Amino acid sequence: MRTDTQRMRAAVWYGARDVRIAEVDIPTPGRGEVLIEVAYCGICGSDLHEYADGPHAIPVAEPHPGSGATAPIVLGHEFCGTVVALGPSVIGLAIGDRVAVEPNYRCGACPRCRAGEYNICRHFGFAGLMGNGGMAEYAAIPAYMAHLLPEHVSLEQAALFEPASVALHALRRAGATPETMTVVGLGPVGLLTVRLAAERKVRRIVAVDVSPARLHRAAGLGATDLIDARMEEGVGERIRELTGGEGVDVAFEVVGSESALRTCLAATRRGGRVVLVGLAPQVSLDTFALVNNEQSIVASVGYRDTYPELIRLVAERGLDLTPVVTATITLDGLVPHGFEELLGDPGHQIKILVDPTAHRDRVDHLVPCAAAGTATPTPSARGRRY
Amino acid sequence: MRTDTQRMRAAVWYGARDVRIAEVDIPTPGRGEVLIEVAYCGICGSDLHEYADGPHAIPVAEPHPGSGATAPIVLGHEFCGTVVALGPSVIGLAIGDRVAVEPNYRCGACPRCRAGEYNICRHFGFAGLMGNGGMAEYAAIPAYMAHLLPEHVSLEQAALFEPASVALHALRRAGATPETMTVVGLGPVGLLTVRLAAERKVRRIVAVDVSPARLHRAAGLGATDLIDARMEEGVGERIRELTGGEGVDVAFEVVGSESALRTCLAATRRGGRVVLVGLAPQVSLDTFALVNNEQSIVASVGYRDTYPELIRLVAERGLDLTPVVTATITLDGLVPHGFEELLGDPGHQIKILVDPTAHRDRVDHLVPCAAAGTATPTPSARGRRY
Ligand SMILES: [Zn+2]
Ligand SMILES: [Zn+2]
Ligand SMILES: [Zn+2]
Ligand SMILES: [Zn+2]
Repeated sequence: MRTDTQRMRAAVWYGARDVRIAEVDIPTPGRGEVLIEVAYCGICGSDLHEYADGPHAIPVAEPHPGSGATAPIVLGHEFCGTVVALGPSVIGLAIGDRVAVEPNYRCGACPRCRAGEYNICRHFGFAGLMGNGGMAEYAAIPAYMAHLLPEHVSLEQAALFEPASVALHALRRAGATPETMTVVGLGPVGLLTVRLAAERKVRRIVAVDVSPARLHRAAGLGATDLIDARMEEGVGERIRELTGGEGVDVAFEVVGSESALRTCLAATRRGGRVVLVGLAPQVSLDTFALVNNEQSIVASVGYRDTYPELIRLVAERGLDLTPVVTATITLDGLVPHGFEELLGDPGHQIKILVDPTAHRDRVDHLVPCAAAGTATPTPSARGRRY
Repeated sequence: MRTDTQRMRAAVWYGARDVRIAEVDIPTPGRGEVLIEVAYCGICGSDLHEYADGPHAIPVAEPHPGSGATAPIVLGHEFCGTVVALGPSVIGLAIGDRVAVEPNYRCGACPRCRAGEYNICRHFGFAGLMGNGGMAEYAAIPAYMAHLLPEHVSLEQAALFEPASVALHALRRAGATPETMTVVGLGPVGLLTVRLAAERKVRRIVAVDVSPARLHRAAGLGATDLIDARMEEGVGERIRELTGGEGVDVAFEVVGSESALRTCLAATRRGGRVVLVGLAPQVSLDTFALVNNEQSIVASVGYRDTYPELIRLVAERGLDLTPVVTATITLDGLVPHGFEELLGDPGHQIKILVDPTAHRDRVDHLVPCAAAGTATPTPSARGRRY
C-alpha cells in the first residue's frame, strides 16, 4: 500500500453515460473488512447496462441494505487483488495474500441465507453495483468475500472467477452432468459454460450464436458443434437432428430473449431441462407442449459456493479461463475502449479486463482487439504480484 | 371367467356424446397378455373430455402404435381386477391373482424407455384411450401392466392407483419432500396429492380451490390450510403470508390455467419450484421475475414406477385412498350418472368408479352423491373378490 497518499483513482458511476475516472479517498477497512489493491476488474454486461441507460441495480434514492450506499458508486464486481491492510477482527487473511473477490452481499439471517442459498438472499446485491466495487486502485471488502488463491492460481485466472461462477452455477442447476447440451448465446458466460462443460466431459456441446467470431471462440473452448443462428432456419430442429432426433439433455438460454427460449425448448429432449440464465422480459409459453414433453424450465441467478471449485479446477486440473479475455485496459480506457467498444461491436470483444494500477507501471496494457484472435493480458507487467 | 358365453358388456366410444354400452366379444389374451375380470374402473377427466368433445387422444384415422387400434374403443384406464385367463408366455401371474393395472403402453426401445422413463416414451399411450380399456366386464392387457396385489390391498384401493400415481409422480418431480407446499386445484389428482403429501409429513399443505366441498374434502385428507380462491384477492400473497412472508417450497398447478400458474409462482419462495400437472394452453410468463427469484417450472406427465410404492403404502402404512371416491356406478349408469353428473357439478363429485359386473350381483351400486359427505363403495357386494 502506498503510504505517500490517501487518495486513489476509481471509476465512479454518477448516472447514465456519466462514469468518471475520479480521484477519491482510499477506503479504510472497517471491522471484518480487508483492503485490497486491485489487480484486475472485468467489465460485465450489467456494468454496461448501468453505463448505457442506468440506473438499473444501482441505488440512487434508498441506500442498499447490504452496503448502506447510494450513487455515486465505484463500479466493478469482477475483481481480484492483493490484501494490503486488515480492518479489526479479520481472521484467516494476512497482508500479501492474493484473493479472488466473490462480490455478493448476503444478510446471513433470511431463510435462504440460513439454507446456504445466499445467491437468493432477500437483500441480494453486489459490491460494484449496490455498493463500491473494484474498478479502483483499492477496494475495502468484507473478509467473507475474499477467497485465498493458492500459489498456482494466477490473478488473471481469478479475474474470471465471477463470470465463471455464473456459468458453473448454471451447470449445477442443470442437475446431473448432461451427455448432450446446447448453449444458446456465446457472451462471456455462454463461452465459460462451454468451457466448464468440456471440463466435465460433456460428450456433445452445441454452441449457438449469431456471431462467427464467437462461434470460432466456442470451438476453441470445447464446443463440438457450431450453429450460426443467422444462417439456419429452425435451430432447435437442427440441434435435435444432431442428437439423432432426440434433442439435448439440457439447453442453456444465455441470451435473454423469447426466441432463444423457444429455440432451447425445441432443442431439448422429452424430460429435459432448459436452464434460464438470460434475462428475457415477458415471454409466451406453450405449457401444453411443456407438460406433454415433461420438460423443466429452471432459472439460474448468480452463484453460490462456486469459488472453491474454480480454484481447485485451475490449481489442480489446469483449467484455463483466460481465452475469453479479449483486451486488458487502463482505468482511463474504461469508457472509450471498454464500454463504447462493447456497445459498438459485441461480436469480437468478449471479456475486457480493467487494470486499475497499470498507469503506475507505465505500461500500456491496452490490447486492441479488432479480430477474434487471442489477445490475453501481458503477464510480464503483472509479474510483481506473484 | 364365465364359460357360458364369449360375449361381454363394455362402454364403447364411437364419437363425442356417443358412448354406447354394447355387447362385444370377450377379448382373447394374446402372447404375453392376461385377461382380467374388471372389478372397478374410475372415470378420469380425460374420459370426460373424450365424451364431451372428443376425439382428443383416441385414434380415429391412424392406429396407435402401442395398441394397433382405432375407434370404436372401449374406454377406461383406471382399472383393476382378477386374472381369469393367461395368454401364451406369461410368467409371474396366475389365474385368481388380483391385480392393479398400470395402463401405459411403452415401446421399450426408444431412448426414454431405455432410460427407464417410459412415461415419456416416444409412442406414449394408454389402454382405454389409445386402445381398449377397462370399462368392460373383461379386459386383455399386456402382463407388464399388471401389478399383483398383496393380501391386505383391496381392489377399492387399487382402483385409485392410477390417479394416485399421477399425484405421486408430481410429488417426486418436486424433488426432496418439501416442508411447505400448496396444491392449486382439488380434483382427484389435487386431492390425492394432498393425501400423499400428508403421508410424507409435509408440515404445511395449503389447499386452494373454488369449491367449498372440495376444500372440505382436502381438510379431511390432510390439508393444513384452506383457501377459497373465489373469496380472496391475491391468493399467492395470502399463501406467502401463511409462510411468514417467504412463500412455499413447492406449488402444484393442477388446474391447467394461466391464472393458476400465476398464483403458483406468486405463492412460491425464491429458489422454489412450481410443478405443472394441469394442461394449460399458451401462457404469458414473466421470465425476468422467474430468473431473479431463481424459480423452476417443472412439468409432470403421467407416472412411472409408482405402483410398487402405492402398494407398499397401502399394505404396510395403512394408506387409504378411497375418501376421494364419491360414487360407484354400473356400466349402464356411465353416461347419466358418470359423465353427465361430472359435467354438471364438478364440485361435489370427485372420483366416480364404474363397477362393470355389478349387474351380475343384482346389487345397486349407485351411490347418489348430492353432498360432499363420504360415499365410499359398499364393500359387501365386492366381497367375493378378496
Ligand atoms: Zn457480472
Ligand atoms: Zn439473506
Ligand atoms: Zn386418468
Ligand atoms: Zn419408448
